[in-house]
Amino acid sequence: MGNKLLMQAFIQTLIQAIGEKNILTDPAECLAYGYDNSRRQGHPEVVVFAENTLQIQKVISLCNQHKVPLTARGRGTGTPGGAVPVMGGLVLSCERMQQVVKVDPANRLMVVEPGVLNQTVQTLAAQHGFFWAPDPSSAAFCTVGGNLAYNAAGPRAIKYGAARENTLALTAVTGGGEIIHTGSATTKGATGYDLTRLLIGSEGTLAIITEATLKLTPLPEAKQTIRAVYRHIAAAAEAVARIMAQPVVPCSLEFIDAKAIALIRAQGVDLPAQAGALLLIEIDGLATELPAAARKIEQAALQTDLLEIKIAADAAEAEQLWDARKALSPALRTLAPGKINEDVVVPVAHVPLLIEKLNTLSEKYHINIVNFGHAGNGNIHINLLIDSNDAQQRQGAEQCLAEIFDSVLALNGTLSGEHGIGIEKRDFMAKAIDANTLNIMRQIKEVFDPNAILNPGKIFPAY
Amino acid sequence: MGNKLLMQAFIQTLIQAIGEKNILTDPAECLAYGYDNSRRQGHPEVVVFAENTLQIQKVISLCNQHKVPLTARGRGTGTPGGAVPVMGGLVLSCERMQQVVKVDPANRLMVVEPGVLNQTVQTLAAQHGFFWAPDPSSAAFCTVGGNLAYNAAGPRAIKYGAARENTLALTAVTGGGEIIHTGSATTKGATGYDLTRLLIGSEGTLAIITEATLKLTPLPEAKQTIRAVYRHIAAAAEAVARIMAQPVVPCSLEFIDAKAIALIRAQGVDLPAQAGALLLIEIDGLATELPAAARKIEQAALQTDLLEIKIAADAAEAEQLWDARKALSPALRTLAPGKINEDVVVPVAHVPLLIEKLNTLSEKYHINIVNFGHAGNGNIHINLLIDSNDAQQRQGAEQCLAEIFDSVLALNGTLSGEHGIGIEKRDFMAKAIDANTLNIMRQIKEVFDPNAILNPGKIFPAY
Repeated sequence: MGNKLLMQAFIQTLIQAIGEKNILTDPAECLAYGYDNSRRQGHPEVVVFAENTLQIQKVISLCNQHKVPLTARGRGTGTPGGAVPVMGGLVLSCERMQQVVKVDPANRLMVVEPGVLNQTVQTLAAQHGFFWAPDPSSAAFCTVGGNLAYNAAGPRAIKYGAARENTLALTAVTGGGEIIHTGSATTKGATGYDLTRLLIGSEGTLAIITEATLKLTPLPEAKQTIRAVYRHIAAAAEAVARIMAQPVVPCSLEFIDAKAIALIRAQGVDLPAQAGALLLIEIDGLATELPAAARKIEQAALQTDLLEIKIAADAAEAEQLWDARKALSPALRTLAPGKINEDVVVPVAHVPLLIEKLNTLSEKYHINIVNFGHAGNGNIHINLLIDSNDAQQRQGAEQCLAEIFDSVLALNGTLSGEHGIGIEKRDFMAKAIDANTLNIMRQIKEVFDPNAILNPGKIFPAY
Repeated sequence: MGNKLLMQAFIQTLIQAIGEKNILTDPAECLAYGYDNSRRQGHPEVVVFAENTLQIQKVISLCNQHKVPLTARGRGTGTPGGAVPVMGGLVLSCERMQQVVKVDPANRLMVVEPGVLNQTVQTLAAQHGFFWAPDPSSAAFCTVGGNLAYNAAGPRAIKYGAARENTLALTAVTGGGEIIHTGSATTKGATGYDLTRLLIGSEGTLAIITEATLKLTPLPEAKQTIRAVYRHIAAAAEAVARIMAQPVVPCSLEFIDAKAIALIRAQGVDLPAQAGALLLIEIDGLATELPAAARKIEQAALQTDLLEIKIAADAAEAEQLWDARKALSPALRTLAPGKINEDVVVPVAHVPLLIEKLNTLSEKYHINIVNFGHAGNGNIHINLLIDSNDAQQRQGAEQCLAEIFDSVLALNGTLSGEHGIGIEKRDFMAKAIDANTLNIMRQIKEVFDPNAILNPGKIFPAY
């Protein structure tokens, strides 16, 4: 939208259609809706605060008529830049769509608008003894709409699944401006194509979700934490495979690599001298069953290179065991405020090979690479600790990242486990997905969004 | 393909491309590949036994060139007629694609060709302490390809999910003849659009799945069965909602209604005189934890109108409790060999309303309607016991079915939980799915299958 006069005309019709109180046009005000946790800054020309499905339909229709790009936005906590309006145009903020339409404990579901915070869902669900499985670390600030856009997960996905496994039905407005209803309010369905899962994880490129029926899960009665410290990552990974092969599925199975251990040791967390990898395992269930379940986990975790295993006796001890994990993020932020945080997945048994490769790359590019993540899913958060003001290091990091993604794919892994593709990883998509399959995805995009107005520049590599 | 000469020419090119030994053309022989468990009979003009992905690609290319309909087939156990070649043409049998490509216990996955039987997967997985969640009652005879085509489930879907929740990646040939690869060999992914779930449940109308990466789950250590008998269905449904709201998720939660109880009582199964509904509940987990878990279920099952509750002391007693359920199918088959078996889903709390409606319809149409199914998912198998030789009763049954589907949809339910749409339910799709959404589905079909050669006449209502 280079032409200011055309944009002015568009904004006038927008004001007539949905009212001035729902629109921002001041460039300084718009700027606050042009960035996300990728730290990229876009320049929206107009921000619309939609209040309901019909308003969103009107906005989309006008964007089609005026060929204005539309980027939907929850609270901007996403990391790959999915909410950044890289081509300017209109930002559709869902922050005013915070209605909880229905809480239905008898049918284990909740119907919400996209602007409802993840934490609000959890709080309301807990009043009836339930939770919603996706638990990204940003739960307190992120919206359900954003969670669905990225197929958000978190530690407990290992047992309870991600957004795709915990959403029953959606109302959405396609890029073409049609209101559609996907799925049904039932936990089973074989009625036509699965458009619910197709929209989840599509990062606002196909349709704007305006209402979601979330599947709720009963809260466990009790939890228990186990910490296991290993001499090296291969030993920890073998333990992970053994833990995942026995019937007590943990509700969290996190790992921390040697470099991360060095960091948290510097924060005062006491760990065995030879520690080369650490697993934090959480199990849940009936209070009376946890001791037996913990013993099962302990058996599976046993390994010649196990240095120490601790089962928390109570909540306070569990808290203490989690301290190691919690000390990590502040330590990383202090060390490298401009760090690059990547989210990749490999099959569980390939984690040691990837960590080995990451250590080689760390030496090659002179970049400290610290790894932790959701071991049970092979979902690793790779942190490149760079000084973002150092142009040479930034360039080295980019080359290093390209090598990382190549290794992940060579190990049968995938580019993202829970953060999405956005703008950050789009140029690697052609390596991850073959041309035929990517072409089918592009054509599906055209079906939903014939004028390509929705979130242009995302997911797909430039031709 | 009315024109015999054109068909002859097509078959000649087919023989040249993939060899005579993989092709049937004798009409009598072809007939055996023209029916399925819907008891409809189609008339394929040629049957091809594909051996690999590239052969399937060749066959699809030729079908496109010659505009020949292609209907894929596993073992024909599906009930809504999805495997019946209603427009003739070519039947692609996957029965020779029975290779287990990889069993990878460390990564909890198995890679199989579509012709592998569900039972083969279970047997191989069990050797490593795992199972694959989908467990249709036809497991011994049905193929993974068919399971994926219909998003098959079974009783344990309540805890472990259906095919969509238990498949990681697919190789497929689209209707356009392109080989695509969806998903990845990881249990988490946020890398572009979810084509895996889109293909699962699409009943061979988008692409032919040629290889599937199945997600395996550890076998439980032990199981326990509980049988609860209620005075009426409303009491049983209330118990179901309470069972589903507490943290011990059963691995099976089946129900049987009053008319079904009358049938099995006639088979000699001893049940309380006032029994109006019966729940069969199975829980699994560590052997030491099951007594506490069973008590939790017992608490949730308690209800003023509970007549009797029995917890099986051992496997023999469990077998005895399941007898009631197992006596049902033979009883139904004896009573009405031409019975109509429908598969619908409603939100769990609406089950009593649906059963009430079914009883009203039973009186209105003078048809005995017997109901049982997977109560925890609200997935009900409705059996209309008609004499299929009685034309008047058949007509009444059709009207009755239309009213049943209307009621299911009015109760926020859906047309199918695990059997699919096929030809049997396609005319009800426009009631279940609004025009915009159905239109998006049709356009997605066009993306994958531009010449509409794949399984024509299925899922979508006639224009």
